[in-house]
Amino acid sequence: MDVEKARADTPGCARVAHLNNAGAALPPAPVIEAVAEHFALETTIGGYEAAELRADAVEHFYGAVAGLIGARADEIAYVENATRAWDMAFYAIPFAEGDRILTTTSEYSSNAIAYQQVAAAKGARVEVIPDDAHGTLALDALEAELAKGAVRLVSLNHIPTCNGLVNPAAEVGRLCREHGVLYLLDACQSVGHLALDVTLIGCDMLSATGRKYLRGPRGTGFLYVRREIARTLEPPFLDLTAAEWKAPDGYEIRGDARRFETWERYVAGQIGLAAAADYASALGITAIEERVTSLAASLRRMLAGRPGLTVLDRGEHPSGIVTFTVDGHAAGAVKAAARARDVNVSVAQPRAHGYDPHGLDAAVRASVHYYNTEEDLERLLAALP
Amino acid sequence: MDVEKARADTPGCARVAHLNNAGAALPPAPVIEAVAEHFALETTIGGYEAAELRADAVEHFYGAVAGLIGARADEIAYVENATRAWDMAFYAIPFAEGDRILTTTSEYSSNAIAYQQVAAAKGARVEVIPDDAHGTLALDALEAELAKGAVRLVSLNHIPTCNGLVNPAAEVGRLCREHGVLYLLDACQSVGHLALDVTLIGCDMLSATGRKYLRGPRGTGFLYVRREIARTLEPPFLDLTAAEWKAPDGYEIRGDARRFETWERYVAGQIGLAAAADYASALGITAIEERVTSLAASLRRMLAGRPGLTVLDRGEHPSGIVTFTVDGHAAGAVKAAARARDVNVSVAQPRAHGYDPHGLDAAVRASVHYYNTEEDLERLLAALP
Repeated sequence: MDVEKARADTPGCARVAHLNNAGAALPPAPVIEAVAEHFALETTIGGYEAAELRADAVEHFYGAVAGLIGARADEIAYVENATRAWDMAFYAIPFAEGDRILTTTSEYSSNAIAYQQVAAAKGARVEVIPDDAHGTLALDALEAELAKGAVRLVSLNHIPTCNGLVNPAAEVGRLCREHGVLYLLDACQSVGHLALDVTLIGCDMLSATGRKYLRGPRGTGFLYVRREIARTLEPPFLDLTAAEWKAPDGYEIRGDARRFETWERYVAGQIGLAAAADYASALGITAIEERVTSLAASLRRMLAGRPGLTVLDRGEHPSGIVTFTVDGHAAGAVKAAARARDVNVSVAQPRAHGYDPHGLDAAVRASVHYYNTEEDLERLLAALP
Repeated sequence: MDVEKARADTPGCARVAHLNNAGAALPPAPVIEAVAEHFALETTIGGYEAAELRADAVEHFYGAVAGLIGARADEIAYVENATRAWDMAFYAIPFAEGDRILTTTSEYSSNAIAYQQVAAAKGARVEVIPDDAHGTLALDALEAELAKGAVRLVSLNHIPTCNGLVNPAAEVGRLCREHGVLYLLDACQSVGHLALDVTLIGCDMLSATGRKYLRGPRGTGFLYVRREIARTLEPPFLDLTAAEWKAPDGYEIRGDARRFETWERYVAGQIGLAAAADYASALGITAIEERVTSLAASLRRMLAGRPGLTVLDRGEHPSGIVTFTVDGHAAGAVKAAARARDVNVSVAQPRAHGYDPHGLDAAVRASVHYYNTEEDLERLLAALP
């Protein structure tokens, strides 16, 4: 990978050591230009007129995103953000009394809140599969629970927001297929980060954001829904794009993934997110994964070499997210100290963990991307209290 | 109103005669700059870091929007667009078997689709109140239906997408209060257009978009929920901003309107929408309404003077939306002919009407704003086939 080229494409690299890519990555020039140009066009000739003129670019989004994750264009919906994408999938599932939802200890609390809401409303049960010895979801425990029956959904994150671990998404997919159970993967942190192929993973639905590792604009996301099941899921909300009105009192829902969309949208963001997908595909997602995980491994080694630092990442093959605590210093204070030196990290908050059994306080999260360098990592080390 | 100043603030005025303000208006310079500056900041220092630095501007949104519509800041939620804003309110209502939903003939088909979806799922009934002699909702008919009982919701548009009529929002509000019935107003076309005060209207919930008469960015909208009822409505989707996670398996929903928000969002759009609300407030919404409706009245007179043209707007006091057909010319062809001369109009599609009893084909929609001039109207007339 040509890191110098990637940095030259990224105006923010001249300003900050950006280790907050699991928050929102710095976008590359093609994304910035796509968004800015379309917004400028809207202000010059009108918003609808701009969308009509650039209809091909809007439509290109579906193939660009599909190509990045091994999907087909009709399996992709453009949704405002990953939360809404996940919501549109999760709340579409017709849970009934006694249905079981299986998830992981590392689940995002927004998802956990949604599980509880549906459990309370429909009488479904939420069950948290324990971790294996490496701290990721235990496949044997999952298999045992699937075998007991009544599982309506397996729903988990690929990479959690609060830890570097990577859940065994493809192995979970194999088990879900064996048991004929729906599988929803929250890929918020993993799209644009790991070489991710929905056919290899075997998930039925996958939600993602634009702003994180994909390097797209804030306010964008997408939902993948496998072609064979799109028609079986009635979206929780419908509008005149998702469904066609049939006067006097009927409607017909679209057959493809766009049944989860709304007509109204951030069009400049959609074009920008397509540019981000194209950019990642051109670099090669396998090369991206290798560089990101290798840099993160370097950072973990550097951190482990300092006294008073504890690296918290679990799993055999951790991701580009590095989490740690510094003895005697609150995570927020560490973040502020780094920020004062133009080094961006974030704080992994306990409130974002759904079921974490580790009882941790807030941790520092340094999430690297391929455009980061060893020098960025050294700058972080130098900025630590 | 200083129209020359308003035009000088609007770069698009130099390029087009924009009569598609009910589609997406041309934003003024303060909105353009707010969006572009925040987006540039995100690309330079990082998306999270930009939001933290501009936290005051993000927070300013609530007061700015509240001030424009006579609400309180805690009654406003930032939502991705008007459709999602309306969805979050409508789908929060716990309909039961036999509940009646009353609406109008001019209702937007997206809303009509949602009514039918809920009616099918919950056994609620949708009833369309007939028009009065002027073609707007008949208040005596509404009152008679309210008196029959079992009405769970009155839900209607303030100004429809397909016609210049203005529904009697405040009179409906008075009737709903008398009967203790929930009232949801779709103000997609009326915010930034009419002098609109939620306390005078008496609605419980109001949904709006940024991109139309408010002149904000695409991909933005808001929801007003009256303080006294916010706690009684459980949002259909919840995340960690709408609710706080309480391990091991509980959560607590926020008490204010932000329970309808998601954490993830188009931050630059939120700041831009706040700038749009400030801009409208500074001009004065009463002055805006006067200028818009007066220009629209001029346009109707000019169109009525041409043979072969039929103006379709109903109601005693029509809005800034002017709809018409041209004998022998499809609406799409008229739009294209105008566009070829840099005059922007749109097509009011029958598929966007929910229950329209008038059986119309597509119509041309010319929606004027205060920054339009008589010359813009002349340019439209000159461009008609």
